[in-house]
Amino acid sequence: MLIWLWGIYQTKKGQVRKMFFYMPTKVYSEEQCVKRHGSELAALGEKALLVTGRHSARSNGSLKDVEEALESNGTGYILFDEIEENPSMETIMRARDLGIVQGADFVVGIGGGSPMDAAKAIALMMRHPDQDMDYLYQKGVDSSACPVVEIPTTCGTGSEVTPYAILTIHAKRTKSSISHKIYPSLALADPGYLKFAPESVLQSTAIDALGHFLESYLNSNATDYSRMLVRGGMRIWSKFRDVLDRKRELIEEDYQEMLNAATLGGMAITHTGTSLPHGLSYYVTYEEKVAHGKAVGIFLPGYLKAADSQTSRELLELIGFQEIEEFRAYIGRVLGEVMMPEELRAQAVRGLLENAEKLKNCPFSVDERALREIIEYSLD
Amino acid sequence: MLIWLWGIYQTKKGQVRKMFFYMPTKVYSEEQCVKRHGSELAALGEKALLVTGRHSARSNGSLKDVEEALESNGTGYILFDEIEENPSMETIMRARDLGIVQGADFVVGIGGGSPMDAAKAIALMMRHPDQDMDYLYQKGVDSSACPVVEIPTTCGTGSEVTPYAILTIHAKRTKSSISHKIYPSLALADPGYLKFAPESVLQSTAIDALGHFLESYLNSNATDYSRMLVRGGMRIWSKFRDVLDRKRELIEEDYQEMLNAATLGGMAITHTGTSLPHGLSYYVTYEEKVAHGKAVGIFLPGYLKAADSQTSRELLELIGFQEIEEFRAYIGRVLGEVMMPEELRAQAVRGLLENAEKLKNCPFSVDERALREIIEYSLD
Repeated sequence: MLIWLWGIYQTKKGQVRKMFFYMPTKVYSEEQCVKRHGSELAALGEKALLVTGRHSARSNGSLKDVEEALESNGTGYILFDEIEENPSMETIMRARDLGIVQGADFVVGIGGGSPMDAAKAIALMMRHPDQDMDYLYQKGVDSSACPVVEIPTTCGTGSEVTPYAILTIHAKRTKSSISHKIYPSLALADPGYLKFAPESVLQSTAIDALGHFLESYLNSNATDYSRMLVRGGMRIWSKFRDVLDRKRELIEEDYQEMLNAATLGGMAITHTGTSLPHGLSYYVTYEEKVAHGKAVGIFLPGYLKAADSQTSRELLELIGFQEIEEFRAYIGRVLGEVMMPEELRAQAVRGLLENAEKLKNCPFSVDERALREIIEYSLD
Repeated sequence: MLIWLWGIYQTKKGQVRKMFFYMPTKVYSEEQCVKRHGSELAALGEKALLVTGRHSARSNGSLKDVEEALESNGTGYILFDEIEENPSMETIMRARDLGIVQGADFVVGIGGGSPMDAAKAIALMMRHPDQDMDYLYQKGVDSSACPVVEIPTTCGTGSEVTPYAILTIHAKRTKSSISHKIYPSLALADPGYLKFAPESVLQSTAIDALGHFLESYLNSNATDYSRMLVRGGMRIWSKFRDVLDRKRELIEEDYQEMLNAATLGGMAITHTGTSLPHGLSYYVTYEEKVAHGKAVGIFLPGYLKAADSQTSRELLELIGFQEIEEFRAYIGRVLGEVMMPEELRAQAVRGLLENAEKLKNCPFSVDERALREIIEYSLD
């Protein structure tokens, strides 16, 4: 008892450590989960607005699964299949108008990050029919939205569980998340859809998921909770690491691991946000049309290199790399080269130095030179 | 490309692996969090029913913090401070009646597992004012409930995030969770309250949290998601392991680690349920009045011993034990001895063999002899 009391009085005055956990999306991750949990899907409203891109939701069977699940549960739906890669605010508004005219009261996003992000923005705007598209980026206003269901068919974005919706802002020649946090109510993650994705999509999106882990772990908002999500996700990710650079053949189980890793990456960045590699990537995607995962992935070696070396080593160890050069070579093998002209480098550095949000998330301070070094180590 | 395609065609037909993640409770875990997030607390309704035991919520300051947070946000409240340890269905009904008469529309549980579990059961019954107490254990009926906020002041139950509410059923001379899953809307976990808990309470409840980890990991419902929660929690738990058997002095940081470990244990069992040690514990608590955490903890060595040796070793390693004898000795040092008379052993074994739920959660099959061996290795 004496030892105990002494311990209490010897406590040091620590700083307040703020820990936060919030992940309200219900996630089913299994083969055939749209069909298996169709009644939960259908119960979210009277009429669904289905939001997809032009092709893949048809070819991988996900759209058909959703339509059948809704029909067999007596819930109506209407389709908007015109979401482009990196959807614009204008597209969101067209889909919103269709949803309102047709009396939809919930939104189902099916596909990769583009339709899933779009679904959240559309669900917000459907709930605010009198607002114009400026509302997407207004702060301090009502963020209520229609219920959202997300059905991922790639394995990177994690958008099925994040509250983020990244849209293209043509006026700023880049991308940015809307100001509202819209958590999906339900995520139905069927690894079967991944079988229809081309190798390059699996590679690029799996590297996007890796970016979420690294940027969430190396983040000023990281807590024990968020790092648990990263460790849990990287543990899974490391199992298929060698598939991405063709050191090992893909097996059936990999699809579920890829999808689960992506979902955990989404949960991780939900708690921390992303940081410099994502911030840099948006310029490369906008100007050079480089796929999102690839545009993020190319900056990861530089980000790790810039971070404190102990944390970097911890992260490399979690995915089985001894040192950063080995990791840089791996990224090069998986993604190939990316050209980033000098003009674009200058634009990205300038833009990022004005992006308080992404800089705040970075646990070390960066100036123009540091950003240049991250880009150069990553690309040159 | 060839290798890739070949990989696809070589996939084996795997079993469907069902993964599920659902943890809708918003958790703030930090000093002063009731005050800091008082407006979110107060926004859950017009009038709160505060549910506590008779003493500790007063002495550790948690009740006062809640009252002040509600007052400063203009939300009314009424207090029910008569929750006994291992609350009975009868107590739930008295609190429910008070809540209804006084016009409360949400419930705040403050304390250890007893008031927090009670809060959920009361919130259910308040929403179903025409039902009698049999409703608590009815299956297949409406589980809607008033919003629940939980404020833990011990570090074991995890009830602040679980949907479970374990009540004493005098008619069956044991305890059991109600048939409804009631997820708290908000958990406000301030490690400062733990400073007022006696050493024996910290010990017993921290061992309860350990039980949640072991029983969730060694569980037929375990998935990568639930095991991630266990690994993340045990990683934290192992930091204060040596405080519980007085090998190291308690320091300020330990309180937050203890509380976070407990919360993660709650998240883990939310996804898997508990198994044999919890099932056995209820008899010991009912008949011998042994505190819940202690009653669970004494059976952990036997449960690990009965499990497959590789999984047991993985678990022991996560908390830094080489072998099971070392773990058994540790449990003995922390908890002391517990007597379990032959008659009670027979009753517990009989009861458990009829408890389909707890048996189903156990990943290995057990008969009377196996249960006897678990009890004997643990206690004798």
